[in-house]
Amino acid sequence: MTIVSQPQKYLAEFLGTAGIVATVTGAGHMATSLGADSTVGLMMIAFAVGAVLFGAITMLAPISGAHFNPAVTIVMGLRKQISALEGSLYIAMQILGGIGGAIVANLMFDKAWVSANTTVRAVGGSMLGEVVATFGLVLLILMLVHHNLGGYIGAGVGTWIIAGHFFTSSTSFANPAVTIGRAFTDAITGIELASVAPFIGMQLVGALLALGTYAVLTKNK
Amino acid sequence: MTIVSQPQKYLAEFLGTAGIVATVTGAGHMATSLGADSTVGLMMIAFAVGAVLFGAITMLAPISGAHFNPAVTIVMGLRKQISALEGSLYIAMQILGGIGGAIVANLMFDKAWVSANTTVRAVGGSMLGEVVATFGLVLLILMLVHHNLGGYIGAGVGTWIIAGHFFTSSTSFANPAVTIGRAFTDAITGIELASVAPFIGMQLVGALLALGTYAVLTKNK
Amino acid sequence: MTIVSQPQKYLAEFLGTAGIVATVTGAGHMATSLGADSTVGLMMIAFAVGAVLFGAITMLAPISGAHFNPAVTIVMGLRKQISALEGSLYIAMQILGGIGGAIVANLMFDKAWVSANTTVRAVGGSMLGEVVATFGLVLLILMLVHHNLGGYIGAGVGTWIIAGHFFTSSTSFANPAVTIGRAFTDAITGIELASVAPFIGMQLVGALLALGTYAVLTKNK
Amino acid sequence: MTIVSQPQKYLAEFLGTAGIVATVTGAGHMATSLGADSTVGLMMIAFAVGAVLFGAITMLAPISGAHFNPAVTIVMGLRKQISALEGSLYIAMQILGGIGGAIVANLMFDKAWVSANTTVRAVGGSMLGEVVATFGLVLLILMLVHHNLGGYIGAGVGTWIIAGHFFTSSTSFANPAVTIGRAFTDAITGIELASVAPFIGMQLVGALLALGTYAVLTKNK
Repeated sequence: MTIVSQPQKYLAEFLGTAGIVATVTGAGHMATSLGADSTVGLMMIAFAVGAVLFGAITMLAPISGAHFNPAVTIVMGLRKQISALEGSLYIAMQILGGIGGAIVANLMFDKAWVSANTTVRAVGGSMLGEVVATFGLVLLILMLVHHNLGGYIGAGVGTWIIAGHFFTSSTSFANPAVTIGRAFTDAITGIELASVAPFIGMQLVGALLALGTYAVLTKNK
Repeated sequence: MTIVSQPQKYLAEFLGTAGIVATVTGAGHMATSLGADSTVGLMMIAFAVGAVLFGAITMLAPISGAHFNPAVTIVMGLRKQISALEGSLYIAMQILGGIGGAIVANLMFDKAWVSANTTVRAVGGSMLGEVVATFGLVLLILMLVHHNLGGYIGAGVGTWIIAGHFFTSSTSFANPAVTIGRAFTDAITGIELASVAPFIGMQLVGALLALGTYAVLTKNK
Repeated sequence: MTIVSQPQKYLAEFLGTAGIVATVTGAGHMATSLGADSTVGLMMIAFAVGAVLFGAITMLAPISGAHFNPAVTIVMGLRKQISALEGSLYIAMQILGGIGGAIVANLMFDKAWVSANTTVRAVGGSMLGEVVATFGLVLLILMLVHHNLGGYIGAGVGTWIIAGHFFTSSTSFANPAVTIGRAFTDAITGIELASVAPFIGMQLVGALLALGTYAVLTKNK
Repeated sequence: MTIVSQPQKYLAEFLGTAGIVATVTGAGHMATSLGADSTVGLMMIAFAVGAVLFGAITMLAPISGAHFNPAVTIVMGLRKQISALEGSLYIAMQILGGIGGAIVANLMFDKAWVSANTTVRAVGGSMLGEVVATFGLVLLILMLVHHNLGGYIGAGVGTWIIAGHFFTSSTSFANPAVTIGRAFTDAITGIELASVAPFIGMQLVGALLALGTYAVLTKNK
């Protein structure tokens, strides 16, 4: 049976998502620890996340496809690229990875292993920010796969997320598992629990818009 | 008929140009919102635009050629790579995309959906800045296409525009549709309406110089 | 005999490791000399090291495999990819290169050719930081080699180490020879002698964890 | 006759070197104009130069080999890859390009078209800095060409020079034509005339050391 015989996929999804959240959380702690200027700190955090996305996607894509993101897994499920069971296990591992990554980062910086976060994020234009961020992310992945440009996904996703930190009002969470993980830390990159569900809702809206746009862009091609 | 049967091209040109302007506008709002130092803010904006150019060009080039820029479309028209009708529709979609991108960015940052901009830009050496910025951009695209190095266009254009933010006195608008779009926002990355036409004129001068230089560089090759 | 007939390998390992340490040491001196803000200085240092890793690995991998790191050489030895004798010589050259690189950097900045460093680093969460940093580094190398993605190792390792400067609490030494080299300078990127051994211990733990994780990820593939 | 029939080569060498010097000079003016912090300004300048190197090398290498640097041309001459006559013309065009680039940048920023520079640079460890910077640059080019990794030269040289701005005490001029060009501006990235010759001497020492190291590294391969 596929699931039992390829447990590597699930470990890859866990590790990749853990790496992303450990990075965004750890870099948040680092910015605070260094007393970083707001913009400089945001740049440091963004470059860290983009760099880890590049490496994690490139090295783990041959194992699991390197989703690391329930929005991606759901879109792949709607396109029948992954079964409901396997997709559900992917998402579970991504969420566990997201929480695990936050814990590792908290421990690296001598913080409590988990903390509740109090940063209100799901307000005003930030909701649209998450739609834009996830729309671009999912469209990029779908288009690159469609055109057999898979070798660009690591660099493309990494640089998209760097940009998203700078030009979307929400700083581009763009990932439900990462959003959940970031609720488990008091780092400046965290998110209060009450903002998690609205952010995830906007992310799914962005992902579905990307799927529709992808269908139009690639029709008759 | 080509135009009717491949509406995807026009959507691609709209989306790509919208992405560029949403990025430069949104990052401008972000810099203001964070109280960014001038140089740090410029770096944040430049990296955002360069990163989005990389992704947008790489994912949409197989659909429309990823012009996203009337200066590029005009040069391709002069080289008979695109018909006058199709080129005109490309440019229309680029301009609409530019304006649309500014609106999305304004809404993401809880601003009025459009604002008039008051930043005077078409003065002194900035005019030469636009010539240099567009010259390099168009020459780069023409040379990479000529040498079958199309896989480098996304990275090459993205990094050229990052550099252009730093070393050209105009911060490298280098794109008539983007210049028009940036008039519809009060972000620090905007441009007053009266500066738009002179900037576009200089951009076209740069593009034509690039076309001539390209002809010399590739003669007898 | 291999060792005598291919002395190039040892020179490559010396040069590559010297380049890394000259970079991190020199950039540390530069940050101090410019009075850099902590976060800005960290960014400058990280980008320098990542860039040199990209170039050094890409140009020297065809000669020696571009280990530049005893943790990598030990893992390759455990996997029978390199003999005990050759591996020992690699490690010796890496350590000599690390010290040599620090000396070059000290001389470039008109410092004493060697200085004792007093920065205490092996405390608290920084120990876990070294485990995380080396785990990711070694896993990345093993996975990319396994999937015949060797062309990505330079960029992957460079960007991983950039990220590691920002999100690991130890700023990612992740390399015993580099750690030793960095004890021979009073640059802000140096390390006191007493912290060297504990850091190396944590690096080896991370490397072994990576080897185990790699075995699980690639089983039955 | 080759020289007459391929004037494109000389134009390419002129344009590439002009682009590099316009960038480093223009970014220097920009840093001053924005009142940039020293380290932030250095980062902005370095990223601009690295980005332009990537694009210029990638697009012009098929025309002229993209030397843009008399140290590279001299090494290629010593290796009999270019004739004395052609090499001399290359160097002349590089120097003219360097001066031309400085003029363009001065004009972009509304400065006098040429100015004498007063920044003393050829002192102490900065001399060693130029040796290190040019050694790495030339070794990188020679090794990548040797291993048929020419596609990495643009990215490799660009990132090496970014790193060189940060970790060498001289900020990596590493190029006699660029050094001469940078004497024709009062930008903070300029160099006083009296420092030009000593810097060029050190650059040639670095280039020759690279050639010797290359010979050892690739013997019997």
